[in-house]
Amino acid sequence: MKGILLFGHGARNPDWAAPFHRIRAAIKDADPSCPVEPGFLELMRPTFDEGIDCLVEQGATEIVIVPIFMAAGSHLKKDLPLMAAGAMDRHADVRIGIAPPVGEAEPVLSAMANYAMAVSPELVGEV
Amino acid sequence: MKGILLFGHGARNPDWAAPFHRIRAAIKDADPSCPVEPGFLELMRPTFDEGIDCLVEQGATEIVIVPIFMAAGSHLKKDLPLMAAGAMDRHADVRIGIAPPVGEAEPVLSAMANYAMAVSPELVGEV
Repeated sequence: MKGILLFGHGARNPDWAAPFHRIRAAIKDADPSCPVEPGFLELMRPTFDEGIDCLVEQGATEIVIVPIFMAAGSHLKKDLPLMAAGAMDRHADVRIGIAPPVGEAEPVLSAMANYAMAVSPELVGEV
Repeated sequence: MKGILLFGHGARNPDWAAPFHRIRAAIKDADPSCPVEPGFLELMRPTFDEGIDCLVEQGATEIVIVPIFMAAGSHLKKDLPLMAAGAMDRHADVRIGIAPPVGEAEPVLSAMANYAMAVSPELVGEV
């Protein structure tokens, strides 16, 4: 069974995690049996390791790590492969793969472009 | 005339800016006359100020700052309003507004969820 780890940077403000929970809910709506959890690099929980372990506990035998990042900077190029290798050491019977970041996906960029063209901003000073 | 600033964090690797150029190109495809430029907080150019000034030079009389961020952390809550206020001081005749970050837009999150469900990852160690 395939599981999905939504890999994020993390931030001090708990509200920062809201989009991750919304993406998770959208996936659960489409496929209620799909194990899907967030996992953060720093400042937030669940951590990357906690997210992976939670997916394995739910029966995932294959895990796709999906970076919820705009692009592949040093966190994705250096930190993530090491973390993923550690996860494979802990779960030798689970196939683990890393997807390109969401910011490289054409439909995601297209949705961002459409949003930018349509959005109504708050005027500065009137927020 | 409305202009769009695609506000990003920035990173050391120049490739990190690629999604911003792709979003800009998608907007230009849809509306060739729309001034749209990236503007980065740090590590990359154009800077936020350079992006704003470039939009004004192109004739923008109203600027929407669209944060290409997953969520509103301290950069959007603390840094960006100060930067936007500075831009208003420099361009008193230009209306400047800040949009919610792309990561709060339902179609963007939906596109990310669809991507996460469909993506084929590279297996770790086989990359």
